[in-house]
Amino acid sequence: MIRVDTSVTHIQQGGRGVTYREPQPFTVAEYEGRIANVRKGMHAHGLDALLLTTPENVYYLTNHHTPAYDAFQALLLPLEGEPTLITPLIEELIGRGHSWVERFATYPHGAPALSAVRTAVGDARLDRGCLGVELGSAFLSVRTYQGLVAQFPAASFRDASGLVEGERAVKSDQEIAYIRQAARVAEAGLRAGIEAAEVGRADLDVAAAVHAAIFRAGGEYMSYPPFIAVGLRSSLAHNTWGGKRLEPGDVVFLELSGVVQRYGAALMRCVMLGPTPPELARRNQIVHEVLEATLEAIRPGTTSGEVDRVCREAFLRRGYRVLKRAGYSMGINFPPGWGEGAVLDLSDGNPTVLRPGMVFHIPQPYRVPGEQTVATSETVLVTATGREVLTQFPRELFRK
Amino acid sequence: MIRVDTSVTHIQQGGRGVTYREPQPFTVAEYEGRIANVRKGMHAHGLDALLLTTPENVYYLTNHHTPAYDAFQALLLPLEGEPTLITPLIEELIGRGHSWVERFATYPHGAPALSAVRTAVGDARLDRGCLGVELGSAFLSVRTYQGLVAQFPAASFRDASGLVEGERAVKSDQEIAYIRQAARVAEAGLRAGIEAAEVGRADLDVAAAVHAAIFRAGGEYMSYPPFIAVGLRSSLAHNTWGGKRLEPGDVVFLELSGVVQRYGAALMRCVMLGPTPPELARRNQIVHEVLEATLEAIRPGTTSGEVDRVCREAFLRRGYRVLKRAGYSMGINFPPGWGEGAVLDLSDGNPTVLRPGMVFHIPQPYRVPGEQTVATSETVLVTATGREVLTQFPRELFRK
Repeated sequence: MIRVDTSVTHIQQGGRGVTYREPQPFTVAEYEGRIANVRKGMHAHGLDALLLTTPENVYYLTNHHTPAYDAFQALLLPLEGEPTLITPLIEELIGRGHSWVERFATYPHGAPALSAVRTAVGDARLDRGCLGVELGSAFLSVRTYQGLVAQFPAASFRDASGLVEGERAVKSDQEIAYIRQAARVAEAGLRAGIEAAEVGRADLDVAAAVHAAIFRAGGEYMSYPPFIAVGLRSSLAHNTWGGKRLEPGDVVFLELSGVVQRYGAALMRCVMLGPTPPELARRNQIVHEVLEATLEAIRPGTTSGEVDRVCREAFLRRGYRVLKRAGYSMGINFPPGWGEGAVLDLSDGNPTVLRPGMVFHIPQPYRVPGEQTVATSETVLVTATGREVLTQFPRELFRK
Repeated sequence: MIRVDTSVTHIQQGGRGVTYREPQPFTVAEYEGRIANVRKGMHAHGLDALLLTTPENVYYLTNHHTPAYDAFQALLLPLEGEPTLITPLIEELIGRGHSWVERFATYPHGAPALSAVRTAVGDARLDRGCLGVELGSAFLSVRTYQGLVAQFPAASFRDASGLVEGERAVKSDQEIAYIRQAARVAEAGLRAGIEAAEVGRADLDVAAAVHAAIFRAGGEYMSYPPFIAVGLRSSLAHNTWGGKRLEPGDVVFLELSGVVQRYGAALMRCVMLGPTPPELARRNQIVHEVLEATLEAIRPGTTSGEVDRVCREAFLRRGYRVLKRAGYSMGINFPPGWGEGAVLDLSDGNPTVLRPGMVFHIPQPYRVPGEQTVATSETVLVTATGREVLTQFPRELFRK
């Protein structure tokens, strides 16, 4: 519709000629190792290529990250040869700026994303290949998948959900280093939140203090907001700030994460404004005992289900029947959700054996509908001999 | 695996007996009107029920909102009778606490979400019905959809993507009131960001100041992080803070949103640290002229494509060829993404006629790969006679 003007100075372009690149958070060797391991899995499953659409998996292999994955993006990783990032045109710049990937297939706004997938798959001569796709994840819509199947009638498609997640369960030294930094960020946020929790202020002030401390400590944007729920608002799991004044007798529930290089650590504590009612003190005692018992159950060689059983029974012996899992893996995260439940959780009957380098968040709330919640949690690393609690914060119900 | 202990004091439950409910952001009449309009669309499309999985659409009809929609959730809305919220067990509490919906079908952690869908569909006697599903949206995975189709062999499924979005394009007075509040929040964040942008500080300090101001002004968690990109980092679209020091000659790019009752307004400005290089001043002038021309093109009765053409040609006449849309609808938002592109955008050839009550964000960056970006934007309401710019902030390249 528009005449191409020969006097054009600049064309807004995807990224050809880009000169600005950011440093990579991992060595070339670490990325090569990840790719090699995933390719072993691809080979074992008879896949000629993976078309990854889960932002965490794309990031894990390439360092490509943008908050704008509401538009279709994917990584095409063939069994051999160069991978291709498939992105909207506007995301090519950030893709080239962050990732080590050299090949891009882009689609302009309004054009179907499949046009870029066709280019990438065609260029890699995979039209007749067996493609692994992530059928269990968000960000591959049914419509896009149906389009893919129609687009490549000679190709076959297999569900490869979980293939990359399997590689992400055990963290490398560098990944653990980032999670340690994220724990420092979470601690800074929690400290500021406890300090700001004063009668007469609003939960908005607590949210302001928590966020300011998190970012000053080097945190990145979070994948869940901090959960800051005051008084009866804390009775709703996953509730957060909403303009409530802090009043005497209120519990200030704080659960938050730090994120560094997209790796997260989470932490949960509560503040009691005024004297603690005996029943809340009792529940708080239970929560701390159960958390301690659960942490002690974490060691290499035990199973996910065994840790969950210990947690569940410890609660039950104290008169509280929980209907949730004991915890979940922590690592790379993009909104929505800071947990790696898709990687591994600590849940009833789960036979997965714990190995050194796994990291879990163990949230233990005592929540009764219509009443205030008390809760505590830690982020914990499985070590060669047992466990190391990564989040370092006094484990108590804070009183103000 | 666990013996039910008769001495159990509390069972962690979904929400039966919940006594705490939060106020609704809209009147009963407004929710009834929304439901009635959507049902008209369902009737016209021959649907017996809608199974909605897009968080914005579920929120629009019910006020159900939780950040934890990484686990499957849905609203089953039959053509007649009560709707059912389908959620993980742990989300039932917040669902009952926020929404007006009385019927819930839940699934415990680890159980397939489809068990709850089966209950809801069975209870509503829809096993042989025609169900509208959102095939174009995230949060209905291919695997879940395939499970649905297998689960209900006598039912038929139709793609109902866009049906609810169509109702969301024109905002009510109360929705506009929330977007106005969100604009105040965004302005507070921007003001704090500009104030914090000083040579020698870090982009982390700017992020801290922006967030603190946003939440103190009553903002909720955002669906994109604020984009705070300093110096050449601003050359990457959708880049944000990463620990960079602010240095003389840097542009501080700021694009952020305020969110009130999940309704958003967005705003973009830049700060120049030190003297403005002539080329950046020239580009800044262009950006402001094009924004003004685009805003002037917005009026009831014109088309989306016409506004986009005006914007595109205004840039082209000034030597810059843009490859992006001129803007996109603003309204309800959940991560990832603050825009309502699925509702409506201002894009090449789009024949949609603008109507009073539509709201758009018009971001105008002048971005050249490898160079610093200058940009400005407004959030604008279509009125009966023209337009009203909702974001109220001096439109300039700030100099410090």
